[in-house]
Amino acid sequence: MTDKIRIFTYAVGATLFSELLYILWLRFKHRHMNTVNKTDIQLGTDRNSRSNTSIILNVDFNDQEVGSSYKPMNKVLIFPDPGITCKRLILNGRCAYSNCQFLHKKTSLYYLTKMLSTAKTKMDVCVYMMMYSVLGDRIVDAHKKGIVVRVITDGQMGDVPSSQIGRFREAGIPVRSNSTTTFLMHHKFIIIDNETLINGSFNWTKQAVTGNYENILITNQKELVEPYSAEFQHLWQLYDPVQLEKKKDPQ
Amino acid sequence: MTDKIRIFTYAVGATLFSELLYILWLRFKHRHMNTVNKTDIQLGTDRNSRSNTSIILNVDFNDQEVGSSYKPMNKVLIFPDPGITCKRLILNGRCAYSNCQFLHKKTSLYYLTKMLSTAKTKMDVCVYMMMYSVLGDRIVDAHKKGIVVRVITDGQMGDVPSSQIGRFREAGIPVRSNSTTTFLMHHKFIIIDNETLINGSFNWTKQAVTGNYENILITNQKELVEPYSAEFQHLWQLYDPVQLEKKKDPQ
Repeated sequence: MTDKIRIFTYAVGATLFSELLYILWLRFKHRHMNTVNKTDIQLGTDRNSRSNTSIILNVDFNDQEVGSSYKPMNKVLIFPDPGITCKRLILNGRCAYSNCQFLHKKTSLYYLTKMLSTAKTKMDVCVYMMMYSVLGDRIVDAHKKGIVVRVITDGQMGDVPSSQIGRFREAGIPVRSNSTTTFLMHHKFIIIDNETLINGSFNWTKQAVTGNYENILITNQKELVEPYSAEFQHLWQLYDPVQLEKKKDPQ
Repeated sequence: MTDKIRIFTYAVGATLFSELLYILWLRFKHRHMNTVNKTDIQLGTDRNSRSNTSIILNVDFNDQEVGSSYKPMNKVLIFPDPGITCKRLILNGRCAYSNCQFLHKKTSLYYLTKMLSTAKTKMDVCVYMMMYSVLGDRIVDAHKKGIVVRVITDGQMGDVPSSQIGRFREAGIPVRSNSTTTFLMHHKFIIIDNETLINGSFNWTKQAVTGNYENILITNQKELVEPYSAEFQHLWQLYDPVQLEKKKDPQ
């Protein structure tokens, strides 16, 4: 009788153990599959993945290189992405969910968020509209990490329902905007640590990421970055609430 | 009596001559005043000319340097201009009309048109909207000079009344655009002679020149220009009417 119990126990134990091994192997396999392979994206790799989409990187984007001020950096990101990038991939660099339906490769959005995360001391945001929460998250995260974030946006676009601007204000990020409704604050640039410019046609919306044809140019060349820094400073003072109040009532 | 006639003739002659000299001097003075002084624009010169306008050039813009592929060129133009630039100044480099009310200095529009006029062989235009006739003129002029001009634009924006696109088609310039109304062809770049990129937030409208806050970045650095050339070629094929027809009717 004790033999039968022992045999039964062994059988159940072995079954459970093999089942456990199999589950662990599946998890490992999916984790590995959904982690971006750092060498698998080259120029135009994804050009044919969807007929009306393209990702163009002029050279392979080296994560270590991003945000470095020690050598000239010139990069171009082309949108739309072929789909929506996995948020876990953006946050952790990998996704362990085997049934995750989002993209697990280096999209333009992936590089853009990566770039925003390189900020060490300062982030000057000067964008017409800021609508996409995934990008808004990066701005709020930078502020939470103690990075000095300043935001300039268009007065009208800052008030529309899906805008991230209210969220920025709630988080304590200083935001300034034009008071006129006639002309647009139509810039779409961000300067990281006073040294890297992110600029282009790209509106910071979900539609710009996955639908429109858009471009972003990234450079750390001083003669290109400095005029944008000067323009940011110019607008920051111009949109100072005290100055705007003075204009309304010159007395 | 002959003495009196001679004196009278001398007096009238001298009066007419001095009047003529004075008129000539006035004309010379106005011509000189309304001709752009090549050394008088420096970084931020016009920053205070109108409280809500700015022109920022990272260095003095040398006309000889524009369009040169022999050394790296990085320039930034900031809009709005402080007013409307004189068309005669744009076309001839000077304006002889003493009562001309337009601007006679190097505005961002002046540099932009100057830049467009440097094209020697090829001009690839990929802009969301093209509305301003002064800029449209430069595209048509290039085509008339025998430069190979290709235009990509947004399907919907090409059809609005003030668009220059109809004019381009009438002039015989090939134009292609997206057929979908869901997503935008939102790029705003031009590539001159395959070597110089003009790109930014700038929509090619009069409002962008004299009202909005906008930027244009100009560079001839290969690693920045090439991805835009690739994107132009990609869209040019994608928007080939034959391809678009195939998509509509896969049979």
